[in-house]
Amino acid sequence: MTRFASLADLRAACLDLPAGHAEAAAAVGRREATLTKPPRSLGRLEQVVAWLALWQGASPPRLANVEILVFAGNHGVTAQGVSAYPAAVTAQMVANFANGGAAINQLARLTGAELRVIALDLDHPTADFTVKPAMDEAEFLAAVTAGYEAVSPEADLVVLGEMGIGNTTAAAAISAALFGGGERFAGYGTGLSDAGVARKREAIDRALARHERILDEPLRVAAALGGRELAAILGACLAARHLRIPTLIDGFVCTAAVAPLVKLRGDALDHALGGHLSAELGHRLLLEELGLRPLLDLGMRLGEGSGAAVALLVLRAALACHTGMATFEEAHVSNKDG
Amino acid sequence: MTRFASLADLRAACLDLPAGHAEAAAAVGRREATLTKPPRSLGRLEQVVAWLALWQGASPPRLANVEILVFAGNHGVTAQGVSAYPAAVTAQMVANFANGGAAINQLARLTGAELRVIALDLDHPTADFTVKPAMDEAEFLAAVTAGYEAVSPEADLVVLGEMGIGNTTAAAAISAALFGGGERFAGYGTGLSDAGVARKREAIDRALARHERILDEPLRVAAALGGRELAAILGACLAARHLRIPTLIDGFVCTAAVAPLVKLRGDALDHALGGHLSAELGHRLLLEELGLRPLLDLGMRLGEGSGAAVALLVLRAALACHTGMATFEEAHVSNKDG
Repeated sequence: MTRFASLADLRAACLDLPAGHAEAAAAVGRREATLTKPPRSLGRLEQVVAWLALWQGASPPRLANVEILVFAGNHGVTAQGVSAYPAAVTAQMVANFANGGAAINQLARLTGAELRVIALDLDHPTADFTVKPAMDEAEFLAAVTAGYEAVSPEADLVVLGEMGIGNTTAAAAISAALFGGGERFAGYGTGLSDAGVARKREAIDRALARHERILDEPLRVAAALGGRELAAILGACLAARHLRIPTLIDGFVCTAAVAPLVKLRGDALDHALGGHLSAELGHRLLLEELGLRPLLDLGMRLGEGSGAAVALLVLRAALACHTGMATFEEAHVSNKDG
Repeated sequence: MTRFASLADLRAACLDLPAGHAEAAAAVGRREATLTKPPRSLGRLEQVVAWLALWQGASPPRLANVEILVFAGNHGVTAQGVSAYPAAVTAQMVANFANGGAAINQLARLTGAELRVIALDLDHPTADFTVKPAMDEAEFLAAVTAGYEAVSPEADLVVLGEMGIGNTTAAAAISAALFGGGERFAGYGTGLSDAGVARKREAIDRALARHERILDEPLRVAAALGGRELAAILGACLAARHLRIPTLIDGFVCTAAVAPLVKLRGDALDHALGGHLSAELGHRLLLEELGLRPLLDLGMRLGEGSGAAVALLVLRAALACHTGMATFEEAHVSNKDG
């Protein structure tokens, strides 16, 4: 039994989205104007504090309870030779997460966030989507539900990440299906050879041809060309919006996972912020299609939520300034043209 | 008595620069290749760890003892109406720093750095450089020395920042003097009106004309068109290089302050990293002239070292990954094409 009884039911949930709390964002803006700095001189730091307040409905906003959710899945399309690493690495990295040895473990500790890893049926990869849909409706809805239910209602911020050998192929296929342009979203992933990238492009071309009939239905695209971890990220992002929890998106795979939501409703990611621009080729193109401007551009392309976790540090810096700074009046500092 | 007996003496010190420790950077690279991630997938995070090691001569490098040095000075050129705030704000903000109320106080606390503020003769502004040199040789050398001696030999990293009403005019004048192009470096500073920017441009034009004879001598440019806090930043950056301490540069004013060093010796900033791209107009142009690519682009333009302090968080993230991650062998993860 899944939370969503059918694709139609999920689609209805994707269309029924709350707005933010405008009054909390306005209250942040009023305090911002009193702090000892020229107006807007902290740039995006000021904007992200207002954005946190908008969705939390709290001024000042909080970052006491931050959840990093990393979803892992395996992909039948790896049979097409589209990854530099064997599929077994997905489960090995999940074990590495459990033992605290991965990059995201170090970043979660540094940023004071709780890391939760949700492995999705790793022993049963999705079907090879060059041959048939990656997931049938029941499998897809189960994965979306797993993501939806992973979000804690009490979280102040959710950070979404992923692990899944082969999943940049799924991300490129979804992106191409939603925004056109064939295989322009296919990149080097974890370190493919040029021949590997050629195989990846060919696999995407074949998949788009095979699933041509459903390319105008965003949720069916997510089921046919995605993967369990991507479906779960879509579910988690939707849950966060229903709960009005601000959300940081990681790189290319995460962004592709939530892109179907935007096709269903243009403002579906207003509660979400792109953490970083990945070095993976397709990410810049996809962010442009979605109108998202990520916080960081550090040439990262690891996944695991790592780029978004670094971006969390920027949010912490922003909130520290907003809550800790003195006002012009408190500090006896002359204001502009004073 | 200053550390540097004359401009010629300082110039000699600016030409006598040590190289980094290549073996420590190589050791970082060797460990990086064993960690559970695709090669180079942490992008600039990997590069900054190698850079820290290169200058510290330690693998892994350390960030236990980080000093944020904020230099403050007053500027006679404010008589030309080139700032949105009264000159008294410099001293008021220094008091705000002492009381813990400024943005940089919050960022220093968050990033675990020691903040030290060095106010340079605030009661005696430099001369109005549209009329005469901002500083004579003795004043300039005293300010450079103050900066040079502010750097602790035991620091693992130095973060340089500034406060000084009017100092984006000095920064623009120095930049134009060193790299040409008249007043193209003049921007809105802390929030000038269009009329204010026009006054600022005119002041810079007059200053460049008045000091035309010395524009090919970088240190005389720094003395004639700079300010005490800019001279001190030049001195601190030079000291850090002599001590082989990696250094984070803040925004436009800091970058202009150290630009004369590059004119004297092209590799003078190899131990320094641009923390962020400021929203202040001239910064992008100046960074391009210097070939520097800053870590962050967050639309900040506050000064105080604030942008570099946020960049320090990226360094902490990078170091946490480098030191904390498991190797492929430790974690029993299959390596590429394994």
